[in-house]
Amino acid sequence: MKFTAGLVVSLILIIKQHPMYSIKELYQLYEEKFEGIKLTERQNEVNDSIHYFISQKGKRVRPILLLSACDLFGGDVNKALDAANGIELFHDFTLVHDDIIDEASIRRGATTLHKKYGKNNAILAGDTILIYAYKYLCNSADGYPLNEVLDIFNSTALEIIEGQKMDIDFENRSDVSEEEYITMIQYKTSVLLAASLRIGAIIAGASHSQKELIYNFGLNLGLAFQIKDDWLDSFGSNKKFGKKIGGDIIQNKKTYMYINAWENANENKRRQMQEVMSITNEDDKITSMLSIYKELGVEQHTKDLMHQYYKKSLKCLDDVAIEEQRKTVLRSFAESIYHRDH
Amino acid sequence: MKFTAGLVVSLILIIKQHPMYSIKELYQLYEEKFEGIKLTERQNEVNDSIHYFISQKGKRVRPILLLSACDLFGGDVNKALDAANGIELFHDFTLVHDDIIDEASIRRGATTLHKKYGKNNAILAGDTILIYAYKYLCNSADGYPLNEVLDIFNSTALEIIEGQKMDIDFENRSDVSEEEYITMIQYKTSVLLAASLRIGAIIAGASHSQKELIYNFGLNLGLAFQIKDDWLDSFGSNKKFGKKIGGDIIQNKKTYMYINAWENANENKRRQMQEVMSITNEDDKITSMLSIYKELGVEQHTKDLMHQYYKKSLKCLDDVAIEEQRKTVLRSFAESIYHRDH
Repeated sequence: MKFTAGLVVSLILIIKQHPMYSIKELYQLYEEKFEGIKLTERQNEVNDSIHYFISQKGKRVRPILLLSACDLFGGDVNKALDAANGIELFHDFTLVHDDIIDEASIRRGATTLHKKYGKNNAILAGDTILIYAYKYLCNSADGYPLNEVLDIFNSTALEIIEGQKMDIDFENRSDVSEEEYITMIQYKTSVLLAASLRIGAIIAGASHSQKELIYNFGLNLGLAFQIKDDWLDSFGSNKKFGKKIGGDIIQNKKTYMYINAWENANENKRRQMQEVMSITNEDDKITSMLSIYKELGVEQHTKDLMHQYYKKSLKCLDDVAIEEQRKTVLRSFAESIYHRDH
Repeated sequence: MKFTAGLVVSLILIIKQHPMYSIKELYQLYEEKFEGIKLTERQNEVNDSIHYFISQKGKRVRPILLLSACDLFGGDVNKALDAANGIELFHDFTLVHDDIIDEASIRRGATTLHKKYGKNNAILAGDTILIYAYKYLCNSADGYPLNEVLDIFNSTALEIIEGQKMDIDFENRSDVSEEEYITMIQYKTSVLLAASLRIGAIIAGASHSQKELIYNFGLNLGLAFQIKDDWLDSFGSNKKFGKKIGGDIIQNKKTYMYINAWENANENKRRQMQEVMSITNEDDKITSMLSIYKELGVEQHTKDLMHQYYKKSLKCLDDVAIEEQRKTVLRSFAESIYHRDH
């Protein structure tokens, strides 16, 4: 019997394999460890505000992705829990500071941190949460290359702030190109999903090519996710979407649809779009803009682009050199994002 | 010939030793590498504002301390340069966000970042600088335990934000105790000096006990430094101090002198202090408060406390198990802090 490279890889995979966790089980593992924890026992307004904020827990998308990727590559998810919490805290940090900048009033169904505790506390709370994100990423560094985890984390964090800045800048521009828009949502949304998956793969000890594939799976899925988000706001069903259809149109937000329409519009149509943007009656405004979108074929363009990124993401997952069965969790996660109607 | 533990240590020290760098040389090494560098080539307002801020360079106290400690323990200071820049950037981050919170207009002789670029850019600029601080700390991790560096860095960063929060809270309290005050300045000022020294020692591969000593040297020296800062504002010479004597008194700031006076004052004196705090004529206000300080022996109490911390810091340096000659740089640094008149 000859030990070919392929055979060795297969043997390693068999040794490493254990029954895969479902999304629900990963969620439970995470919640068991972190639900209701206090980052610090020190009593002051900043720390109170942090605990107020993190107790309104999010959907845990990023930590679940991190744990799924770790599990996919045969890693021990228990060793990845602290890093998963680091990623969730980083996401929390971005929300706290973004809400100050966007002057948002509601987050996760509750009053935003800065509206409840004031801007100064919110600045310090965000800073504190960011440092705790690093602390959790460092916590469980035994057995995996911390340097590699922090490299991807640092560059991702810088891209996210860049994305937030682009988003703000776009508000005052009507000439944003599709390319610029894609870069913005890639930075603002996709890179953190992609980095979460990659960090899970690093902790599991995956090879360079596998880490690249799982990262690009997340990157493309994130783009599909964000474009779907835009699409639902204009073409979703009121009842299922849970918020008023056309909210982005009312706010003159630069969505993919808006940008695609603008790129395809002639001078006359562009003038029409500008007129629509100043209509005060909300229902009239929505109807008029949707009719322009229809004329310019925007709905189909948007669906096509979304589909393109979705296919790209699945291709990356296909190429991951792990037996198909272990990919079920991430594949159904991708499907649920693509087919969601709210 | 028996290889006793002491002999082995001596041999290692001899092997490791090279001519010590002076403070000036360390400063030059640092500036050669980092003066005028751009953190990123990406062009936007946030990045412009960051380069505006870091081009008004500070005194580089913290990076120099880090490099000195590395040199003291026979480490290669070239390997510590990136970590030194990480510490400097962290200090910059605290200044950018503190200036928003304190509504400060001037920093390092120029308009504060938020006054020039707006609060939203300043929030994102501070966040970006903090992430770059981590990036630089991670950059040069080859050959030293990154995990240990980040452990001390993370806990220090959290203490500094805690200190900033305490400082803000003290503004609205008249009953701050000396103990609380010392904790506040320890967090706000001392721990970063101490952590800089410790990180230098970690990079040089110093032992646990040596790292503790150099940390405590910095911690006590930082307290002496901050108390001297308070003292100079009330008892310094106008000409040498470079700013108006009594500025803290005019602003009703809770300095060590104020707190010590309050603790030693009887009910009648406390009432007097409260009256003085509402005097509008600046010169009258300063004269009246200084006269209360004199009656209560505050100047001497302050000098005594400062001396106490200075002695403690020197004791730590004395105990460092390195030949006396190599301690000259840090010893003169401590002396210059204790004897400074501006």
